Amino acid sequence: MRAEDLAVGQKYGSGLVRVDADAIKRFAAEFDPQPFHLDEQAAAGSLFQGLAASGWHTAALTMRLVVQSDFNPAGGLIGASLDELRWPRPMRPGDELSVESEILQLRPSKSQLDRGLAKVRVTTLNQKREILQVYVVNLVIMKREVPGRDGPPGRSG
Amino acid sequence: MRAEDLAVGQKYGSGLVRVDADAIKRFAAEFDPQPFHLDEQAAAGSLFQGLAASGWHTAALTMRLVVQSDFNPAGGLIGASLDELRWPRPMRPGDELSVESEILQLRPSKSQLDRGLAKVRVTTLNQKREILQVYVVNLVIMKREVPGRDGPPGRSG
Repeated sequence: MRAEDLAVGQKYGSGLVRVDADAIKRFAAEFDPQPFHLDEQAAAGSLFQGLAASGWHTAALTMRLVVQSDFNPAGGLIGASLDELRWPRPMRPGDELSVESEILQLRPSKSQLDRGLAKVRVTTLNQKREILQVYVVNLVIMKREVPGRDGPPGRSG
Repeated sequence: MRAEDLAVGQKYGSGLVRVDADAIKRFAAEFDPQPFHLDEQAAAGSLFQGLAASGWHTAALTMRLVVQSDFNPAGGLIGASLDELRWPRPMRPGDELSVESEILQLRPSKSQLDRGLAKVRVTTLNQKREILQVYVVNLVIMKREVPGRDGPPGRSG
């Protein structure tokens, strides 16, 4: 899948991943050690009123689902930036996540002829189809090889 | 530290965290299993021209540094959304990360009187002071307890 194969409006689904309390606490212990991500009792008295995953855990699992989905540009999924990211509600123990990706915009790179840029909305849902996270990412997508070109992409001088 | 203690322009630093190739591959295997995050040789031929961490790994380590820093709102660091996020260059094996947080904007919550919203720019640097990541996050910050109020924050009816 190269830049030329994509079109605005295309949508891609994903597989599922189920998250449990242990996984939520393990991620939090390493990357976001706050009481409401680590301990049910502390979480009960917090803004979240119960154990809630770090938003970065939701983001990381979302990435796994996208990488394993049918949306697979040839050069890989390489995000240069996000335009926005929202976490309307936290991921909870027992949630089963799925992801929907929709291509919003396509344009050639101004500086590098071998690639294009795709703006993609990535929405993460739980088993009740509630939105846990939504972001718009700007992906670098390689174009088809230019015949006769040599060397790895990105090294054009 | 409550909403009333914050002021626009305040800056907070962080400690340091050093990342090695094993940590980069371990995170990638779990959350972003693409060749350029997993294998030096595959990475050499990729856009990154060498092993590069997942951007979500940079984001997760950034969160740890912020949580362990002196910027510690009483209710915790609770991000509702990001306005933007950029990864100007990838995190590499051997990089030593630090984070700078700057308060850009403060405003009361329109719907909930017990909290305010802080817009904070969070910049992640390597040991050469190169920017690896920058985002603007909208944090929920609790105000001081209203005397005589009862019950956990967020349950006001």
